[in-house]
Amino acid sequence: MKKTENLDFLFHPRSIAIAGVSDRAEKFSFGLKFFEALTQFGFAGKLYPVNPTGGKINGAAIYKSVKDIPGEVDFIISAIPAPFTPQLVDDAAAKGVRAIHFFTSGFGEIEDADGKRLQAEIIARAEKGGIRVVGPNCLGLYCPAGGLSFNGDFDKTAGRVAMISQSGGNAAHCIHDGTSRGLYFSKVISMGNGADLNEADYMEYLTRDTETKIITAYLEGAREGERFFRALQSASEAKPVIILKVGTSGPGAQAAVSHTTALAGSDQIWEGVLSQTRAIRTGSIEEMVDVALAFEHMPAPAGNRIVIVGIGGGASVLLADAFSLAGLELPPLSDVLRRRLMEIFPSEAGRIFKNPIDLNHFETPEKFFSVLGALDQFHEADMLAVHVAFDHFGLISSQEKEFWVDTFLELICQAKKNLKKPAAVILHSFSSASMNALAHRAARKLAASGIAVFPSVSRGALALGRFARYHAK
Amino acid sequence: MKKTENLDFLFHPRSIAIAGVSDRAEKFSFGLKFFEALTQFGFAGKLYPVNPTGGKINGAAIYKSVKDIPGEVDFIISAIPAPFTPQLVDDAAAKGVRAIHFFTSGFGEIEDADGKRLQAEIIARAEKGGIRVVGPNCLGLYCPAGGLSFNGDFDKTAGRVAMISQSGGNAAHCIHDGTSRGLYFSKVISMGNGADLNEADYMEYLTRDTETKIITAYLEGAREGERFFRALQSASEAKPVIILKVGTSGPGAQAAVSHTTALAGSDQIWEGVLSQTRAIRTGSIEEMVDVALAFEHMPAPAGNRIVIVGIGGGASVLLADAFSLAGLELPPLSDVLRRRLMEIFPSEAGRIFKNPIDLNHFETPEKFFSVLGALDQFHEADMLAVHVAFDHFGLISSQEKEFWVDTFLELICQAKKNLKKPAAVILHSFSSASMNALAHRAARKLAASGIAVFPSVSRGALALGRFARYHAK
Repeated sequence: MKKTENLDFLFHPRSIAIAGVSDRAEKFSFGLKFFEALTQFGFAGKLYPVNPTGGKINGAAIYKSVKDIPGEVDFIISAIPAPFTPQLVDDAAAKGVRAIHFFTSGFGEIEDADGKRLQAEIIARAEKGGIRVVGPNCLGLYCPAGGLSFNGDFDKTAGRVAMISQSGGNAAHCIHDGTSRGLYFSKVISMGNGADLNEADYMEYLTRDTETKIITAYLEGAREGERFFRALQSASEAKPVIILKVGTSGPGAQAAVSHTTALAGSDQIWEGVLSQTRAIRTGSIEEMVDVALAFEHMPAPAGNRIVIVGIGGGASVLLADAFSLAGLELPPLSDVLRRRLMEIFPSEAGRIFKNPIDLNHFETPEKFFSVLGALDQFHEADMLAVHVAFDHFGLISSQEKEFWVDTFLELICQAKKNLKKPAAVILHSFSSASMNALAHRAARKLAASGIAVFPSVSRGALALGRFARYHAK
Repeated sequence: MKKTENLDFLFHPRSIAIAGVSDRAEKFSFGLKFFEALTQFGFAGKLYPVNPTGGKINGAAIYKSVKDIPGEVDFIISAIPAPFTPQLVDDAAAKGVRAIHFFTSGFGEIEDADGKRLQAEIIARAEKGGIRVVGPNCLGLYCPAGGLSFNGDFDKTAGRVAMISQSGGNAAHCIHDGTSRGLYFSKVISMGNGADLNEADYMEYLTRDTETKIITAYLEGAREGERFFRALQSASEAKPVIILKVGTSGPGAQAAVSHTTALAGSDQIWEGVLSQTRAIRTGSIEEMVDVALAFEHMPAPAGNRIVIVGIGGGASVLLADAFSLAGLELPPLSDVLRRRLMEIFPSEAGRIFKNPIDLNHFETPEKFFSVLGALDQFHEADMLAVHVAFDHFGLISSQEKEFWVDTFLELICQAKKNLKKPAAVILHSFSSASMNALAHRAARKLAASGIAVFPSVSRGALALGRFARYHAK
């Protein structure tokens, strides 16, 4: 059994060498991409491009070897072809480098046995040279606090959600989905084949990492099953851990092996393992972000009872079904609460004073605030959800609808500040071009006010159901 | 048992009177909304606004009573308060009107017994006067071919999908979702309480309607259970029928009663009933549109075997799981096909030549066309899906990504023309603002070329799984 290591050094290097940066414009150079990404992202330390042909890039010299670099090198990103990697490891060891991220692929994940041999070779040389390896066959690290990114366009806001990912594409998607919805990251690790540092190492590290409050993970399999299980158990006792475990089908498991050498394992075994931890299992990257958003923005609920309010009879039926299916209870409104609603509105005609509450038309901002105030006082519910059904307003024009929905969203932002109950907003049914654009703008605005926003009835229900179940354990 | 009636007259009136049109600017008038919607939508027949206070609207006279209208009146839309509706029915009977749509609510759906009495009253008077009733408590009819709409902004394209909806909001959402994705409608009926014409009447009518090729329905319950079951059985033998049956939970069933008086019935009974028909059950409005799109744009597949191609290793694993879960088979690539792929590309490094196929970088349009051509010839698969994972491209900038994805989508449009296999496109993982906008633009463009496009891995899998299962029956 390996011992837990503090991996802080991976995320805060003072200098990075990038092997495989080409200055020849006609050639697509992955090394150049990493160089440009770090430059654009604003990495504050030293960046050293490396290529045996030498030359210059943006006025800076390209070093022919890592050994030629004048200053110290903490970290290397390798984008050179696989056959040249053993030499790179030896040069790195000679230079006193602490870690190498191999973007390079063509190792354990390909069918050719040479790939597996080469992978064993570089890992052995790295171990001998005291170097830790990220990958190979991965996009590497995103850490806004350390100025690290594999994409210059990623959001630069540092947050407190970490992600371990056995897919660079899914990591990129998670970063985009999270940051566009107000969820920011401490550390994201695209770990590829995990030939040295693997999912267990990262899980153990993140459990202790004070910059990380929530851990998410996209997993195709685990290389050290028992160790990973223990790591997951400890991690999920310490902080919320949200998992997307894939490769559950035969074809999915086969794809996982070709992708990152991961042995998916039987889904029954995984279900059994996960049930012995507090980890929360989800079905997609978006659902993982949904649950993380609840933990990020909502206080712990006392139970699983929720009261829902918004506009639309058909929407209310859909909400009631979805929330019930997700294991949440919709308590009937108390007589006190019904009386209060009857005071606020002249009549129930066109409205439904059950749970979910259909306000139809709420008439004035004051009345809307009064309703939310009354619901906040409704002690039979542990949580509150407000929903907006964008394309459900049948009779009014797109223009009126935009004005009206904008007003409603503004009121929600204002009202949210005074609520004591854990509250969420569900924006749903935005299909038309204008409502889709409005819903996305609105979601970003609400998110910026620290509100957990879900983009469909079923995803809102699933996320809040999982959130409540976690707190019931 | 009522006898089936040809309801064409509902959808092609030559003249419509709207009761409850107010010209007073300070008063929100639902009648005025219907008047404006029909005007904007381009209803070609005569429109007569009615209000006991008289006046003028857009220069046209407001009639004090239906009886004062000089010409014939085929159809009335009522937006007057419930207590005045019995008189309206009598006036309509005197005028020889054939049908009334009651937008008016405050009938069977409210808790007050007076509502139920009033509903029985208007239905009795209508029957006596030879008038059929749509509603009450609903948005009514959308029929582009007849110039009918309850919203002037709806798409004016006539299509061949019908919808029966026990919710106006969900009908509006379905119309927006469908038309924005290239699915157009013959007739949409928001039917409310269904006090006279109910879901069985509409289902029987649409079964025979030559303008309708696909029937969709949002159902909270059925008023004449046995008759509806027989209607559904016949309808689903005649054409694809896609159902969203809600009120499956206790709270959902209660909401349904308050919404449109529908008794939801036990979900087990519904499952049993549906299993004796060819109707396809879905879980949301969007999923209903997904399945309808497959029927609209794809020829019948010979079986449930699908080959998937696109870019991204992590995406491939997600696709494999979701498609397997949805009951689709992913046959392994034949040796012939693998050899063909090896001819097209120099190496499998970075690619995965399994099913799903990960092309990573397809290098040239010619190579992409060659791949699709080879897959079209792959006889172990009955269907083909191409996927685009928008936010998965980790290393390239948003700008490059836009250019690149646009090119890819253009190629898909071109390639689709030559494919013989039923083929679909899955656009997924678009979270960043730029990719979300691009994905929606792309979806509309592909849809305009007659391609079935699904906006997530799981929804694509579900829709194609349901589509294949229907054809296997």
